[in-house]
Amino acid sequence: MNKNGKIYVVGIGPGKKADMTFKAYEAMEKSDVIVGYKTYTDLVKEYYPDKEIVSSSMMKEVDRCTDVLKMAKDGKNVALISSGDAGVYGMAGIMLEIADDKIEVEVIPGVTATNAAAAITGAPVMHDYVTISLSNLLTDWELIKKRLELAAQGDFVVSIYNPKSRGRVTQIEEAQKIMLKYKPKTTPVAIVRNAGRENEEYVVTTLEEMTKHEIDMLTIVIIGNTNTYVKNGKIITPRGYSKKYEY
Amino acid sequence: MNKNGKIYVVGIGPGKKADMTFKAYEAMEKSDVIVGYKTYTDLVKEYYPDKEIVSSSMMKEVDRCTDVLKMAKDGKNVALISSGDAGVYGMAGIMLEIADDKIEVEVIPGVTATNAAAAITGAPVMHDYVTISLSNLLTDWELIKKRLELAAQGDFVVSIYNPKSRGRVTQIEEAQKIMLKYKPKTTPVAIVRNAGRENEEYVVTTLEEMTKHEIDMLTIVIIGNTNTYVKNGKIITPRGYSKKYEY
Ligand SMILES: C[S@@+](CC[C@H](N)C(=O)[O-])C[C@H]1O[C@@H](n2cnc3c(N)ncnc32)[C@H](O)[C@@H]1O
Ligand SMILES: C[S@@+](CC[C@H](N)C(=O)[O-])C[C@H]1O[C@@H](n2cnc3c(N)ncnc32)[C@H](O)[C@@H]1O
Repeated sequence: MNKNGKIYVVGIGPGKKADMTFKAYEAMEKSDVIVGYKTYTDLVKEYYPDKEIVSSSMMKEVDRCTDVLKMAKDGKNVALISSGDAGVYGMAGIMLEIADDKIEVEVIPGVTATNAAAAITGAPVMHDYVTISLSNLLTDWELIKKRLELAAQGDFVVSIYNPKSRGRVTQIEEAQKIMLKYKPKTTPVAIVRNAGRENEEYVVTTLEEMTKHEIDMLTIVIIGNTNTYVKNGKIITPRGYSKKYEY
Repeated sequence: MNKNGKIYVVGIGPGKKADMTFKAYEAMEKSDVIVGYKTYTDLVKEYYPDKEIVSSSMMKEVDRCTDVLKMAKDGKNVALISSGDAGVYGMAGIMLEIADDKIEVEVIPGVTATNAAAAITGAPVMHDYVTISLSNLLTDWELIKKRLELAAQGDFVVSIYNPKSRGRVTQIEEAQKIMLKYKPKTTPVAIVRNAGRENEEYVVTTLEEMTKHEIDMLTIVIIGNTNTYVKNGKIITPRGYSKKYEY
């Protein structure tokens, strides 16, 4: 009888090895197979030239996790990878939903897109912030809009994942309109595409102008709070609301 | 005349080298001096036994950044470190506020406490979440309460930084009360102390019971949404609100 393998659910960070943690790198090293959406396995395969790599298409998350579980029951150690952090709109939740208590599942955290994009553009998320996905595949658009509304009312910094996809293009404009009800037009906005990857691009713009720039599914959008400002091209959200220079 | 040095603002991750990124490690390696709050320099000094380390006390953030700027102007490369991600209630903002355009400042992202704690306890932040600090040193308690209120109304997962300090103990109970106005008593809660460090401890509890457990300034508290549940001791927030098994 086979000894069960172990499942590592690995957040590989935004893209390059530089932004990966040591533990994430080693978990893939220790695994017999690396499994993930092709875009992500393509990001890591150069580091593991001799490793078995199984890449699957998007939207097949349940099948992917069922396959991973089967491999582990066949005695293989498996690294199931997500970009960024696997616990933020990644594979950690669904893998734990599908796993049973016979197989050990370890989630290995990574640098999520918000923090990668923030570092590139300065320090926009220094104060309280909301992480929100505009994907209405699994969440009603009404709930997403309500959350945007509440986030803007609370003057949170807002970090938007999945701002657009091929079939979903109007949500980011609606999100902008909701933000404009509460936040000044001049609120600084960071738009970062392919953070930490080849073809990294970013722009520092404003809430009013943001939709004039290219935004797609490889992009994250960070909208400041009322105290956020731009200095030397970098976005800064001060940590305090008062006594600015006394901390 | 001295050539200016460079400032790296480095997020070292929650604690151990395993959760640090390659780039963070190398930035400290490349620096002439490592500067930070003593708790954090203590976490990294074993990796750089021959390096100059300057540790300062808490609350002296402005002085620390002014010193760092001076060192860079004296031609030194300096790594200014924060735990977790330096851009989340860390040193990135204040360093950029104090720096001028003559010195290059690079922010290097890290795994923030939310993601480290989430990975330890399962996948609690798989869906939209709010990151909020209960420290009212720089933010009015009224604004913090308003944000907690809005976050709960929006059924966001809520990740609480700085839940308590020596002089500030009642806020976490007030936060709990606000959450209980909107979220079920049985909502799963993760309390993680010293995530990724020696003496890591965690408990999976409920919104009603959470304040019966020890919570201090080394603790992060993550409160689920209405869909969050516990399975095999792990907290799972499903990614979708509907069609649960069709993603
Ligand atoms: C399904 S989510 C996965 C998030 C990932 N698990 C993380 O923690 O970053 C995909 C969305 O994350 C954002 N994203 C992920 N990686 C990114 C990167 N390198 N640059 C910019 N945005 C990124 C984009 O908004 C994209 O639409
Ligand atoms: C001033 S904030 C610094 C946050 C840090 N820059 C980050 O990104 O994680 C300090 C608070 O972060 C949380 N925290 C930081 N590191 C932690 C760890 N290793 N375990 C648990 N909580 C942690 C605690 O809530 C603590 O009160």
